Amino acid sequence: MHAITIPEPGGPEALVWAEVSDPVPGEGEVLVEVVASAVNRADVLQRQGFYNPPPGASPYPGLECAGRVLALGPGVTGWAVGDAVCALLAGGGYAEKVAVPAGQLLPVPKGVDLVEAAALPEVTATVWSNVFMVAHLRPGETFLVHGGSSGIGTMAIQLAKAVGARVAVTAGSPEKLARCAELGADILVNYREQDFVEELRENTAGSGADVILDLIGAKYLDRNVSALAVNGRLAIIGLQGGAKGELNLGALLTKRAAVTATSLRGRPLHEKAAIVAAVREHVWPLIEDGVVRPVVDRALPMADAAEAHRVLESSAHIGKVLLVAPSAGA
Amino acid sequence: MHAITIPEPGGPEALVWAEVSDPVPGEGEVLVEVVASAVNRADVLQRQGFYNPPPGASPYPGLECAGRVLALGPGVTGWAVGDAVCALLAGGGYAEKVAVPAGQLLPVPKGVDLVEAAALPEVTATVWSNVFMVAHLRPGETFLVHGGSSGIGTMAIQLAKAVGARVAVTAGSPEKLARCAELGADILVNYREQDFVEELRENTAGSGADVILDLIGAKYLDRNVSALAVNGRLAIIGLQGGAKGELNLGALLTKRAAVTATSLRGRPLHEKAAIVAAVREHVWPLIEDGVVRPVVDRALPMADAAEAHRVLESSAHIGKVLLVAPSAGA
Repeated sequence: MHAITIPEPGGPEALVWAEVSDPVPGEGEVLVEVVASAVNRADVLQRQGFYNPPPGASPYPGLECAGRVLALGPGVTGWAVGDAVCALLAGGGYAEKVAVPAGQLLPVPKGVDLVEAAALPEVTATVWSNVFMVAHLRPGETFLVHGGSSGIGTMAIQLAKAVGARVAVTAGSPEKLARCAELGADILVNYREQDFVEELRENTAGSGADVILDLIGAKYLDRNVSALAVNGRLAIIGLQGGAKGELNLGALLTKRAAVTATSLRGRPLHEKAAIVAAVREHVWPLIEDGVVRPVVDRALPMADAAEAHRVLESSAHIGKVLLVAPSAGA
Repeated sequence: MHAITIPEPGGPEALVWAEVSDPVPGEGEVLVEVVASAVNRADVLQRQGFYNPPPGASPYPGLECAGRVLALGPGVTGWAVGDAVCALLAGGGYAEKVAVPAGQLLPVPKGVDLVEAAALPEVTATVWSNVFMVAHLRPGETFLVHGGSSGIGTMAIQLAKAVGARVAVTAGSPEKLARCAELGADILVNYREQDFVEELRENTAGSGADVILDLIGAKYLDRNVSALAVNGRLAIIGLQGGAKGELNLGALLTKRAAVTATSLRGRPLHEKAAIVAAVREHVWPLIEDGVVRPVVDRALPMADAAEAHRVLESSAHIGKVLLVAPSAGA
């Protein structure tokens, strides 16, 4: 098969479409013929040499895919050859085939086409696990998501609205904020011109955000704590603004607040399977009812992964950037 | 009645036993004749002028007491005049009488005398709410409590052991560590001579502590995060080592860990009542069965509160320092 390889870490041009060996599904794994994958920030870090795949994972980038079941490894039940699926991966999505633990497979939801389905696994699993399983966002609470027009952001807005929360977003342009508003966001903050702490305060009668989903990390840590309400929960899922920041424990204590930080990729299989099962139970019906939709910025040929990375790094996109495998056109 | 007043903030001598007006129980409150109170770090901060009572609370220090019900305010059910009780207070324990919301009262557990019962409300409510209701310590997990010989520490060791956790403590002397061991602590760390991060690592096959209860704050923040296991939870309840510290979000994210900070005093009544109800349900049976005991360093006359504060500030005590009201001898 072909896959995107990284012979030497570097810029987007480090991504090379090359012939490699086919993966072989192990015990409890399913071999998937990849129709599409999608681009994540972690792929950029991996390309740059800063984020190695966890032990046992595919060496190729790609944390999600959609496609068709090609073969079942030993001990797999509940799936059949030919099933249309999408999957959360520990790597290897930028390839024509990938082997994936059966617990990380999801059926393609009704009403979503097979290429679009590649936009769903990472954002639904990340948002559901952090905002609902860890931070327990409840109806009527205020939820702030930074980068509201990102893949994560566009899904977080929709899911938070679907459960009855009030949603605030930050984004860097009026166009991005307008798209967030279309998806349901109530409070729109242009971070280039406005202070989100102040905007949250003004729009919540001074109380702040009950839950914040953040991918900036250190640079926003102090202001995120300031923006939290009493009993607030700050869920950090990315460190784009640095890994070490000053934490005001006095403010945290006065608010009886919590700071959590998680990632999906390094979790053990049973935790990933539990998250995927929760996504299937809670998020899939919302997608099949049309309440929540995949948001796709564009789809590029998988061999042009370098271009997809350039788009992601320019932050010009709204929603997910997909990579379509050659087989999709077959 | 008499109470300990603070005419001017300052050292222990700022505490003045003086005649003041009797409190009047409001709607939903119970008037308690105080037999004993106990000293908490927050009282020292209040004495120094750094920690004002929350709105509506008594101006006198004292966050807990034991005594007898003197009168019921309007709307109180479930309690009768003469009942032996102990109570979590927002203030006013250093006095001959105190009015307390009925939801913060507990019966004196069988087998505990009325003076000793004053040692229970703050430590049981703080430990139960943080270690179990927030951090969800589970059987078989490793629990680290800093200041193992403090009032909080001595109760935390016993409760964590009672639920089947493995317990690590830090303390500043062999004598204190020996007392922690008697109470059940498994891993003893003399913080003056040993590094708790290293000791935890060595004693947990490298995995670290699943839950840490900390009252140091900033000074220990980085090392506490280092000492956490994957999925670890750091619960901060005091800031003796400062309020602002560097948080390593990269380490937190890799471990999928959480930092929480809480205090009891500022919580709304319904949250305090929920905690007190949980303590009565889960902790009181352990005390009545003799599995968990109040640990009392000494009991001093309430009018000598200054001396009690000196003891607390010297950190020479093991367990709780009690203040006995004149009525106790009557």
